[in-house]
Amino acid sequence: MMAVTVAVLLIVVLLVCVPYLVSIALAEGPAQGSAADASPIFGVTVPRDYKRWELIAPAEEAAPLDELRAVIGNQTAVDAYQAGQFPFPDGTILVKRAWKRKQSPEFGSATIPGAATTVQVMVKDSRKYAATGGWGFGRFVNGKPVDEAQHRTCFACHEARAKSRDYVFTRLAP
Amino acid sequence: MMAVTVAVLLIVVLLVCVPYLVSIALAEGPAQGSAADASPIFGVTVPRDYKRWELIAPAEEAAPLDELRAVIGNQTAVDAYQAGQFPFPDGTILVKRAWKRKQSPEFGSATIPGAATTVQVMVKDSRKYAATGGWGFGRFVNGKPVDEAQHRTCFACHEARAKSRDYVFTRLAP
Repeated sequence: MMAVTVAVLLIVVLLVCVPYLVSIALAEGPAQGSAADASPIFGVTVPRDYKRWELIAPAEEAAPLDELRAVIGNQTAVDAYQAGQFPFPDGTILVKRAWKRKQSPEFGSATIPGAATTVQVMVKDSRKYAATGGWGFGRFVNGKPVDEAQHRTCFACHEARAKSRDYVFTRLAP
Repeated sequence: MMAVTVAVLLIVVLLVCVPYLVSIALAEGPAQGSAADASPIFGVTVPRDYKRWELIAPAEEAAPLDELRAVIGNQTAVDAYQAGQFPFPDGTILVKRAWKRKQSPEFGSATIPGAATTVQVMVKDSRKYAATGGWGFGRFVNGKPVDEAQHRTCFACHEARAKSRDYVFTRLAP
């Protein structure tokens, strides 16, 4: 009788938790693409389900890029930001979404996302990416990585301008 | 022996799932504030843990407001956006976070979030808010609702400019 009760409880708990287990498997699991979708040099891919991640901060980039942007991060990234943890721990992933700025149809003073332009990814793995501050980089247009020459520019710029912040520009929005 | 094995399994599953159960309790549960923190007219409060919600879209508001904004939504909102569902179902909650725009210290062409300005909330409850298109509104500064006069302006503007979109301005960023 005891065993049956416990077994029923177990089943109930399992059913309740299935969405969680699935979300763990999906949210920070392997990336969605094949090797062909990985960035040159770094082998970084667009993380599966990244759009569900928490907002770190929006930004606006003036002309000529003229973009709206939003950096989002996985839970490791969010935890590190909230704790003010530098350097970011291995497993941190930051994704920058970007769109052309477009006039709001309702408000003359507002601009909103137009077409998506790039998705840019930073992955922290202090051993794998030891030569580039512990970060691997990926820059994607329409889900495909841009060429190797562009990827050669990533770390140089992050190193020149944000070395003291573990090579990360974006600050957590208050 | 069987009962012990099952009991151990149960404990393991429970421990694995505690974060999920806690997150369910927190993520879309009752709002964090007391009645004093509820908006006039509508009784809308700032949802607990709203910062964890998924990004719907960023926006930029030109001077004199000169703000960066990001609308985020609960799962009901995200599901409705992805399905293109109009009107939004009861239980939809949208939150607009807003910050003064500030010069990026690293890039002359970029602006980033400065001080937080307002948090604005829309809650769908077609019966409770039947007189205002099914939406309750809340506008908060430093966690406290602004006055009744300001709340009287919410629906008039949403009705005048976005009635055909279930009174919602923000579109899902592509």
